[in-house]
Amino acid sequence: MNPVHIAGVGMTKFGKSPKSLIEIMCEAAIAALSNSKIQDIGGLYIAAMNPEEFTGDGNLASHVADALGLTGIPALRVETASSSGAAAFHAAFQGVASACYRHVLVIGGEKMTHLTTSASTRILAEVIDAQERNCGATMPALAAMVTAKYRRKFRRSESQMERVLCAVAMKNHANGAHNPYAQFRQAITKEKYYASKFVATPLRLYDCAPMTDGAAAVILTAEQTDLAVRGIGQGTAPVSLCERESLASFPATRIAAKRAYQMAGISPREIDGAEVHDAFTPFEIIGSEDLGFFQPGKGGQAVESGHTAADGSLPINASGGLKSRGHPVGASGVAQIVEIARMLRGESTAKLKRQPQRVLAQSTGGLATNNFVTIVERVKEEARRAATPAPLTPQAPVPGAGKKQGLRAPIGAEGVIETYTILYTTPDGFLPPLALALIRDRKGSLVMAQGEDISGVKIGREVFLRQAAGIFYFTVKSHLQQVRVAMRKLLRKYTPQSEPSRSSDSAL
Amino acid sequence: MNPVHIAGVGMTKFGKSPKSLIEIMCEAAIAALSNSKIQDIGGLYIAAMNPEEFTGDGNLASHVADALGLTGIPALRVETASSSGAAAFHAAFQGVASACYRHVLVIGGEKMTHLTTSASTRILAEVIDAQERNCGATMPALAAMVTAKYRRKFRRSESQMERVLCAVAMKNHANGAHNPYAQFRQAITKEKYYASKFVATPLRLYDCAPMTDGAAAVILTAEQTDLAVRGIGQGTAPVSLCERESLASFPATRIAAKRAYQMAGISPREIDGAEVHDAFTPFEIIGSEDLGFFQPGKGGQAVESGHTAADGSLPINASGGLKSRGHPVGASGVAQIVEIARMLRGESTAKLKRQPQRVLAQSTGGLATNNFVTIVERVKEEARRAATPAPLTPQAPVPGAGKKQGLRAPIGAEGVIETYTILYTTPDGFLPPLALALIRDRKGSLVMAQGEDISGVKIGREVFLRQAAGIFYFTVKSHLQQVRVAMRKLLRKYTPQSEPSRSSDSAL
Repeated sequence: MNPVHIAGVGMTKFGKSPKSLIEIMCEAAIAALSNSKIQDIGGLYIAAMNPEEFTGDGNLASHVADALGLTGIPALRVETASSSGAAAFHAAFQGVASACYRHVLVIGGEKMTHLTTSASTRILAEVIDAQERNCGATMPALAAMVTAKYRRKFRRSESQMERVLCAVAMKNHANGAHNPYAQFRQAITKEKYYASKFVATPLRLYDCAPMTDGAAAVILTAEQTDLAVRGIGQGTAPVSLCERESLASFPATRIAAKRAYQMAGISPREIDGAEVHDAFTPFEIIGSEDLGFFQPGKGGQAVESGHTAADGSLPINASGGLKSRGHPVGASGVAQIVEIARMLRGESTAKLKRQPQRVLAQSTGGLATNNFVTIVERVKEEARRAATPAPLTPQAPVPGAGKKQGLRAPIGAEGVIETYTILYTTPDGFLPPLALALIRDRKGSLVMAQGEDISGVKIGREVFLRQAAGIFYFTVKSHLQQVRVAMRKLLRKYTPQSEPSRSSDSAL
Repeated sequence: MNPVHIAGVGMTKFGKSPKSLIEIMCEAAIAALSNSKIQDIGGLYIAAMNPEEFTGDGNLASHVADALGLTGIPALRVETASSSGAAAFHAAFQGVASACYRHVLVIGGEKMTHLTTSASTRILAEVIDAQERNCGATMPALAAMVTAKYRRKFRRSESQMERVLCAVAMKNHANGAHNPYAQFRQAITKEKYYASKFVATPLRLYDCAPMTDGAAAVILTAEQTDLAVRGIGQGTAPVSLCERESLASFPATRIAAKRAYQMAGISPREIDGAEVHDAFTPFEIIGSEDLGFFQPGKGGQAVESGHTAADGSLPINASGGLKSRGHPVGASGVAQIVEIARMLRGESTAKLKRQPQRVLAQSTGGLATNNFVTIVERVKEEARRAATPAPLTPQAPVPGAGKKQGLRAPIGAEGVIETYTILYTTPDGFLPPLALALIRDRKGSLVMAQGEDISGVKIGREVFLRQAAGIFYFTVKSHLQQVRVAMRKLLRKYTPQSEPSRSSDSAL
């Protein structure tokens, strides 16, 4: 297997954003490209959990390639519910390790805040078992049931369990306060935690990571850099909770971790820090046990003793985790890699005791049905200097990057039919027959427009254009008007000095 | 790069199916596994374009892994609109070529016939540019505009163009008549073609591939078999038609083909047959030109002369193509590979002049925004004998395969609360507070159930269960009933011969 390295990382600040999903994904990608020396990306791996239902964006990989100005580049989308970002990273790893590509760009993103909590919860609940969903179960409901079982299995009292969950929430909020990319940047008190309302007993609002907007990106390369991807592993588990062997641990994490440790040739003891998928606070506890850091039932003590604090001996979620960074589902798996890359490079704003050598990221898809573990290692100082981020030069890092961010040239008021169709099977809200045409205006721009009626619509016909509510409408010029145009052209042909016709070039 | 071979292929018959998406995907997978000697699949690559909106299935990769009984296996979903099947195949190729996996299973599927044409058209239209969609454009509308432009560019009359499209439709329907997996198995006459109504001028109903249900599967392996994957290539293009350089050819296909030919080290002349994405008849013509088989503008003549007929010198869509096989969007890219594997093995039912040596599949995503080319080659007779499909043995090819096809054991009328939550943030249609619990019945099965009320809900409590409209409801037994249960247990403990309590074990 060809070794795979990380060449650059970048992300947006997480939190409610007025930008579109594609815009935030481009923003993260440009940050990662600027953070690397790489200009010639060979392939694009996009992660989003459900852009069709969250934002109405289909065919996302092509859209993002297009928006980045990377026209022609191979681009695909990968999905495994809330671990989609990690899945895209793993598929991209295979793209480089197979020598299909030299450099690839992984982008994870999601946009969720424009929907109501009830709408988002419904979309998120599509990932769980249908029988359980029909019963009224949601992701928090299932996470709560796992927590109740964990408590019972390890014989904790309700108040003991609450204390542990509170400790996770307080630790991660305190860590997030230092992270400029985090959505919540305020530490919380014990009182605030206990005052927060129950979402699903025993889980309170402060036990659940917030749905948010955000994107993160990573560049993987076959060239040596300061950061080597040493191990990757993935595991799945039955979707229905009713078919699990155990409810107090997640076999999908155990399988993924075993594979990643095996590939890296290391044991859990050789890990110096971890980002663990804390969509719910108990998942950090269970994750830290499934990853082999602590014995089953001992994860809570490790948090309460400060062992997993940012300045502890095994920092977990020193970035603030999903809990305080926020959880744009398709982005989180990539954001974890961005965070561990920064930790390893000593660029993290977390209050670490020492710069780690080897850090792990663990991502969870659905109710722990599709989990990933990734191990990244700092290589050595010499290699690191060689991979120092290139200074930002005036030329854009990607040819044409951001071309879609600017607005298109205004469309002229007149043009010519480039091609057309008369649509007899129309979408809802449009009556057949409907004339549609691509109109080329005088400056050469093409625009899709609807015919005011279908008569006289032919390729090459001159049309008037008008715009209303974002839709262009065209009218074919009358026979008399066409004759006038033809005569004007003839006149121009025999007049050496052509005269610009201002009126027809005026913008709408 | 490690060489990648095909070990087995399988598909469902395409057409309206009463089965679920997951069931048809399992059916195709089991057919592919039975067609190979492989038992130990290392990874699963799933393709579906939009299962969330077509069928409400989220987290599909985990669901399919689960339904196949491949618990724990790495599984992910790949999406590139209507070329998703080809994209999953390419990602799986990288999984094997990178040595991450020895054997992988690729499954593409979609279920569309249960929706109205208007609903499906809306979902499919999500892949096109938003401005064009808002104008009323659909996939057939855009394909029609491309066709009109192609006709004008190559100076064909309307009737000449119609004759060419009719020739493609007649050829592919005639080919599909021989294919037992095709949805439409009837040749059509010229009269029937000309009598069919316009969907979007100049495209008639018989120019459009039907939306349908179906799944297809392929097993890729690092071991040598009779079929080698020699070249893969992918290319993208601007999503908006308005931003394309040319409207009469598809650059995404040209880029993909160039890469695939390069990897295989061959020229288009060395290809003996092809499956070309004929979602619309003109796409076959344009595809055959973009793939380098014919000069631009000459693809139509090749069809009319019989050059691309099943018994011609370069058979194109000898299987019937998407046009007559049907087009379950996520399945088509994988189904094309199944068809070319059968052609190369001499197992195709197409009336070929000779068994081909090297065949190509071309898949199109969206309006040719994300296209793929795959080249597969027959290796040699000796290797082929070694790879003869294993005889079907009584033991299932996958451990636990099809376990979900059977129904669960009936749930008993009584049980114990295994874990629970009181849900305060409930999904639409459910009033808080809502008690949810996993109940373990006397036979050990777990089931998710809703509490009739929230009082007395604790882990370990005995409950009565009832089922209504597919949902289970539980009632915690009264204090008196609990005492009786405890006494019965005590009695049993001191009575050597335990007596089965029939009443409480009766199925609901």
